[in-house]
Amino acid sequence: MQIAIMGYGVVGSGVAALIEKNNKSIARNSLQPEMKIKYILDLRSFPDDPFGHLVISDFSQIANDDEVSIVVETMGGVHPAYEFVLECLKKGKSVVTSNKELVAVKGCELLKVAEENNANFLFEASVGGGIPIIRPIHQCLAANEIEEVAGILNGTTNFILTKMINESMTFEDALLLAQQNGYAERDPSADIDGIDACRKICILAALCFGKHVYPESVHTEGIRKIALADVEYALSWGGAIKLIARAKKLESGKITLSVSPAFVQKSCLLASTDDVFNAVLVRGNAVGDVIFYGRGAGKFPTASAVVADVIDCAKHIDKRKVFGWEDGNADFVADYLDNETAFYIRLITSDKSKTIASLTETFGEFDVLNRSDAPENEVAIATKAVREGDLEGKLASVFADEIASVIRITDY
Amino acid sequence: MQIAIMGYGVVGSGVAALIEKNNKSIARNSLQPEMKIKYILDLRSFPDDPFGHLVISDFSQIANDDEVSIVVETMGGVHPAYEFVLECLKKGKSVVTSNKELVAVKGCELLKVAEENNANFLFEASVGGGIPIIRPIHQCLAANEIEEVAGILNGTTNFILTKMINESMTFEDALLLAQQNGYAERDPSADIDGIDACRKICILAALCFGKHVYPESVHTEGIRKIALADVEYALSWGGAIKLIARAKKLESGKITLSVSPAFVQKSCLLASTDDVFNAVLVRGNAVGDVIFYGRGAGKFPTASAVVADVIDCAKHIDKRKVFGWEDGNADFVADYLDNETAFYIRLITSDKSKTIASLTETFGEFDVLNRSDAPENEVAIATKAVREGDLEGKLASVFADEIASVIRITDY
Repeated sequence: MQIAIMGYGVVGSGVAALIEKNNKSIARNSLQPEMKIKYILDLRSFPDDPFGHLVISDFSQIANDDEVSIVVETMGGVHPAYEFVLECLKKGKSVVTSNKELVAVKGCELLKVAEENNANFLFEASVGGGIPIIRPIHQCLAANEIEEVAGILNGTTNFILTKMINESMTFEDALLLAQQNGYAERDPSADIDGIDACRKICILAALCFGKHVYPESVHTEGIRKIALADVEYALSWGGAIKLIARAKKLESGKITLSVSPAFVQKSCLLASTDDVFNAVLVRGNAVGDVIFYGRGAGKFPTASAVVADVIDCAKHIDKRKVFGWEDGNADFVADYLDNETAFYIRLITSDKSKTIASLTETFGEFDVLNRSDAPENEVAIATKAVREGDLEGKLASVFADEIASVIRITDY
Repeated sequence: MQIAIMGYGVVGSGVAALIEKNNKSIARNSLQPEMKIKYILDLRSFPDDPFGHLVISDFSQIANDDEVSIVVETMGGVHPAYEFVLECLKKGKSVVTSNKELVAVKGCELLKVAEENNANFLFEASVGGGIPIIRPIHQCLAANEIEEVAGILNGTTNFILTKMINESMTFEDALLLAQQNGYAERDPSADIDGIDACRKICILAALCFGKHVYPESVHTEGIRKIALADVEYALSWGGAIKLIARAKKLESGKITLSVSPAFVQKSCLLASTDDVFNAVLVRGNAVGDVIFYGRGAGKFPTASAVVADVIDCAKHIDKRKVFGWEDGNADFVADYLDNETAFYIRLITSDKSKTIASLTETFGEFDVLNRSDAPENEVAIATKAVREGDLEGKLASVFADEIASVIRITDY
């Protein structure tokens, strides 16, 4: 079976190297006599690369070659990846991608085109790098109604938060270290503002709840505002701050989504998921909570997931896998302000007893949190579950100038 | 599509209830107009049960009914489950089982019979209850050469160890509590002597390394001998004692297996896997370490895995899934004495400085461990990696009377 790879960056070169390295077992698992890379599409040339002689710059060579049955897309970005993938699928070629942006924005359409052309469009690598997530949810949890899916989906922010938690680094220093280690881009906003995690939770939500979810419909907060004080309060509360992307089914049938920092209890493995690792929690109505953990990025972990999809495409080359979801609609996603959740609130006040009294009046019951060496004028509490819209209103009207941090508290 | 369930105990009744509860989505995911339970095989009668009218006591009714395409085996034990499953497969019916003993002892043969009769024989529920493990290893990690698979595969022993670690309960008290909670049988030996975990690691080893592994070829130790002193030393070493079942590929191509208590580093999620939860770590040559976590037993978690397999059988009713492994052979499993690993050793000595000197002479470098309130005559160390056979010899000849505990130390 012949394969083309579009985009010869970190992941694309990992895919080529892995297919070479484990070639025999990959062919055996694919039920094919051989698995061979025929083309690599890239505008650059790689004269010293072992696969350099396969590099071409003209996409039409791939599109028009009937010998190429499976195309791997590791270019990233929506354009021209979308146009290329679309054309491959229309020609009946199966496509495997690691490109979360493409799947989050165009997934539903591409899945439909794949179906119409009896081809597969698979994207295990688009969420959680090498961690098996998409297929386990789709197949192994198929007997469950999924109630919630949530996780640590971005390794860069998790690395930064881990440094803040374990080594009391400031956000700025931890970001710098992440950049020095190659975990964060020079412009780190896609990671630290939650955009990357947002794309991934859209894919998971579509998979779990059956309809496409567009990134712009997700309430997304990043980690720029997290202070070491918040990290300390999370520890004293009995957990850790993580950037949690979550999608939850409401009784109304709608789903609520968010990407935001959140307190996670120490007893939940998500709180122990450190450094660049990712973890995804799936809550099913039969299985309870299951968690998938591993490397969410990196050359070979991501290539592992891509090549697993290639193997699956090869096995289903004449009988397409049934896999997909419906179009999204505006009604499907609930306003995040209607979501109910507990909150951690930190305030800087000029009159502590007055603030505590106002908090009591506003929230009724809450827990007061403590940390060592807290300034005299700092108050931190954990509320019971409240409607987000109500909280926003109350905070703005009663405590406006005093608010230093507001962070969600998960129930896991 | 019509289904029969053999064995209406905890898991069997969970399967029936789950198929009823999530019927619509299960049928949709199965690509079937409906999924219907036709028979339940049990020698008891269940007059007040909602499925009581489906209960029959004669297996031949199931075997001879061509309308039954999928048979769920939740009887447990090897006989007569083996004979019943064999006959179903020979009649071309697909079989789904949660019975780890059956798979560990007869799996290879039953997989072959399934293949010969174009039927599926699936057993996701036999390891890790509801946690997706079998299919993710087989499919999602198919691009990897698996180097090691290890995990906490028995919830009962993990519950006992958690109570010993978190609440300083003695083994005896924790076992009693497990029995009171229904987590342990009156005769708890299958759990606490590692027999259950042994069957499960045999299944995982066969899946990961391609040849059947028989339970009697696995070096198996239980947790009866773990003292609170050992639990404390594990904490001071920086981790926790867990009952770890592991299978690892050696450079020779053979595999080494063991079930035994082991020190696991705190940074590994296995150390944070508490109570009755299970977790499985898979180390692939591309993906690195991935971990699957969730409820390893229980009515609905186990039913979740069984019904996922039923769905998969329904989807592959006319085109069998390619899935299986080769026969085992004596050469495949290395002598555990040839395995190299680090050890924790606790000794009770009459002459501490002489013992330390002997330890230095025997092991060269090692770390001395401490705990508060240790008796004066206690010495505890963590060695570097040594060959197990060498260790056994040395311990017996030099420290025979002094040895209180010897526990493996994992590298994760």
